[in-house]
Amino acid sequence: MKKHNFSAGPSILPEYTISECSKAVAELNDIGLSLLEISHRSADFQAVIDEAQALVKELLNVPEGYEVLFLQGGASTQFCMIPYNLLEGKAAYIDTGAWANKAIKEAKLFGEVEVLASSKETTYNYIPKDYTVPADADYFHITTNNTIYGTEIHEDYTVDVPLVADMSSDIFSRPVDVSKYDLIYAGAQKNLGPAGVTLVIIKKDALGKVSREIPTMLNYNTHIDKGSMFNTPPVFPIFASLQTLKWLKANGGLEAMYAKNKAKSDLLYNEIDSNPLFEGAAAKEDRSIMNVTFVMKNKDLEADFLSYTTSVGCSGLKGHRSVGGFRASIYNAMPIESVEHLVNTMKTFADKHASVTA
Amino acid sequence: MKKHNFSAGPSILPEYTISECSKAVAELNDIGLSLLEISHRSADFQAVIDEAQALVKELLNVPEGYEVLFLQGGASTQFCMIPYNLLEGKAAYIDTGAWANKAIKEAKLFGEVEVLASSKETTYNYIPKDYTVPADADYFHITTNNTIYGTEIHEDYTVDVPLVADMSSDIFSRPVDVSKYDLIYAGAQKNLGPAGVTLVIIKKDALGKVSREIPTMLNYNTHIDKGSMFNTPPVFPIFASLQTLKWLKANGGLEAMYAKNKAKSDLLYNEIDSNPLFEGAAAKEDRSIMNVTFVMKNKDLEADFLSYTTSVGCSGLKGHRSVGGFRASIYNAMPIESVEHLVNTMKTFADKHASVTA
Repeated sequence: MKKHNFSAGPSILPEYTISECSKAVAELNDIGLSLLEISHRSADFQAVIDEAQALVKELLNVPEGYEVLFLQGGASTQFCMIPYNLLEGKAAYIDTGAWANKAIKEAKLFGEVEVLASSKETTYNYIPKDYTVPADADYFHITTNNTIYGTEIHEDYTVDVPLVADMSSDIFSRPVDVSKYDLIYAGAQKNLGPAGVTLVIIKKDALGKVSREIPTMLNYNTHIDKGSMFNTPPVFPIFASLQTLKWLKANGGLEAMYAKNKAKSDLLYNEIDSNPLFEGAAAKEDRSIMNVTFVMKNKDLEADFLSYTTSVGCSGLKGHRSVGGFRASIYNAMPIESVEHLVNTMKTFADKHASVTA
Repeated sequence: MKKHNFSAGPSILPEYTISECSKAVAELNDIGLSLLEISHRSADFQAVIDEAQALVKELLNVPEGYEVLFLQGGASTQFCMIPYNLLEGKAAYIDTGAWANKAIKEAKLFGEVEVLASSKETTYNYIPKDYTVPADADYFHITTNNTIYGTEIHEDYTVDVPLVADMSSDIFSRPVDVSKYDLIYAGAQKNLGPAGVTLVIIKKDALGKVSREIPTMLNYNTHIDKGSMFNTPPVFPIFASLQTLKWLKANGGLEAMYAKNKAKSDLLYNEIDSNPLFEGAAAKEDRSIMNVTFVMKNKDLEADFLSYTTSVGCSGLKGHRSVGGFRASIYNAMPIESVEHLVNTMKTFADKHASVTA
């Protein structure tokens, strides 16, 4: 039986992506070879990476002057590549959680870092909004979705310095005005593909402004110049990402995806707010449409509820240890039927509990 | 029809690896989830990475005091990670080709680099042997197999400074005395798995000797401390690598693999040396058992021979542009039957040519 996969990442992918990948591993395009054993310089793979780049540009409506890269090393490697390439004087960050913190730590190796605001004291349950971005910052860095805490920045900020965004866990969940950003990056393993490839969308004008020497593999220009094939790229994760991009386009693109994500998250948040046993973990105005965090008013019931969800075919619902409770990650590929199943599970558990305690 | 895949990399993998991967992408271990959508923190994936590390240690007889890591970014990222972590004063390199050159270029960003010898003037057709490794070098770097030129270092050098080796294209092709090395690294996409994971075997005592601050993701200690899971690892390429490691063990380990590789390469080199149309590109004593490079005495026949090999089901035989001619990459997974097929193709072509020109 296929499980309802609420895992935070690596996470659910479209059935289409999974079945196309399984077939291509066995044999690609009837060429007598597996996807895993062809040269990345072959016409068959060049077509894959070209189409993947083109679909990212089409789906996100990426303007002229930007490049789409498929790199390795995850968002964690971007945490150091970004200051290596962009930080000469001072950079501004907001601290919205564990991942923002890791980005801040790396930037400090390369220049002055001003942390404009933090929601740490309330376990990052909201997005700080009361701060001013210094006009002399080389860039302003945000984490648009905070997987652990279930908070999300719902708009494309307008700022007077280059805007850099970690969109690892909400890329492709809604239309984005890419022109507002100098650099967008995202580990693939939520809405795009399996772990092992990192999407970077970068404005070419953002580069060339630092004086330090940059190691070849950490220099964005290396990968721009070679179309993400300076060295052997992660062929399989890129192929898998292409399948998801095709699925996104076939399912109406990002407007349609956003409507579906809104419907799914509204359904679940409504249950959290109306069910007497549960309460949401994040501030209402900053609630993520990707990661829905919630706890039980009576902590003693949490272990029971988690076992119950497992017994009815749900997977990956345990909350991160820093927040506790539960986290339902309902990425693009999650069908609304799985969210309905979870909501029904919450209702049934509440009913059972009510009858037991009545 | 399955092709005879002589591609230099990404390259042929065992049928076992390919079929296990195709199945696990569809569903892993009957858990109701694809390998692509499970958390890297799940027990199912922890078992994969643990077994992969254990099998690397077992197959290569890795001594105590060494760590086995699965990283991202390819050998190209190691070219900068190595000096970042190990180079304080001076490092020694030998220049045996394009990849050695790239390693040298990155090291120069971090300290003094002494290039002890080079075979560049003869298009890298031999391994330089006439040099002395300076006693004050922080390390001595070698590339054990040079894919483009078909040269290989056939022994584990004994030197008085830490030895660092890029074994990307010959790892697991023969037993190695790991104790002779402080660091061995290898992009997976030849003898191990698909592109997207890099194997590093490192002596823990080699670390902690440089004074610079190292970005988190470039610091070997980060990955040692977290068992290669500081951030989300490349789950699929690691799973695929594990299948190849199991296949290696089931097929007798590295002694058996070396015997098979010797038989395959002897067969092909014997044909090159005895067939009137062909000649080897590399010095005989340095000939690679992984990448067999050869040219035709009459260059005008090369296009014809290449088409002929394609017509009889061979793939990936065109030589690198810097050497020309042909390159038969006959990695571990290549059955001797494919080498026999190539040898027969060379014989048939020579016979046809002899009858035409007679």
